[in-house]
Amino acid sequence: MSYILQVDFPYAGPWGQAMTEAMEGLAHSIAEEPGLLWKIWTENEAAGEAGGIYLFKDIPSAEAYLTMHTARLNSFGVPHVNGKIFAVNEALSQLDRGPV
Amino acid sequence: MSYILQVDFPYAGPWGQAMTEAMEGLAHSIAEEPGLLWKIWTENEAAGEAGGIYLFKDIPSAEAYLTMHTARLNSFGVPHVNGKIFAVNEALSQLDRGPV
Repeated sequence: MSYILQVDFPYAGPWGQAMTEAMEGLAHSIAEEPGLLWKIWTENEAAGEAGGIYLFKDIPSAEAYLTMHTARLNSFGVPHVNGKIFAVNEALSQLDRGPV
Repeated sequence: MSYILQVDFPYAGPWGQAMTEAMEGLAHSIAEEPGLLWKIWTENEAAGEAGGIYLFKDIPSAEAYLTMHTARLNSFGVPHVNGKIFAVNEALSQLDRGPV
């Protein structure tokens, strides 16, 4: 069983390649987070939002990461973070080619 | 470039294996949706929510799916659907093993 964490928050940039350059160090550190299988980085310049979709091995790792990451985003000046954790339905996901 | 659609909504079950059995036909039909690369099915019985994380090839496919799927969920009795579309930052996602 694996678990999805979906996170989004108000974000004013940088976007695209400039976001990549600004966040590369953070991405390397996230790769080492306990229990993390993968993260997809998300951005929507028109909506002024960014975030991430994460797959974790277990709920405690996902919950601990969300607590830490929310505090980190608050320290960056992000006032509000939306975060939700879900179990993956693996059988249905496999029917739809889901990478779980 | 690919695009994430994240969807969640209030849901009262069935859960787990019973959800798989109830939604198997729908999952097969979703696999054929235009522009869909994959879907991960999500469920949280404690929170009373379910949803999905989708990867699409382009924004129009993601937008058309969200419109259709929201109407379908409404017809199932789901009163409110949260749906957001984001571009994927592929370089940062690759650093974190993201399947994009």
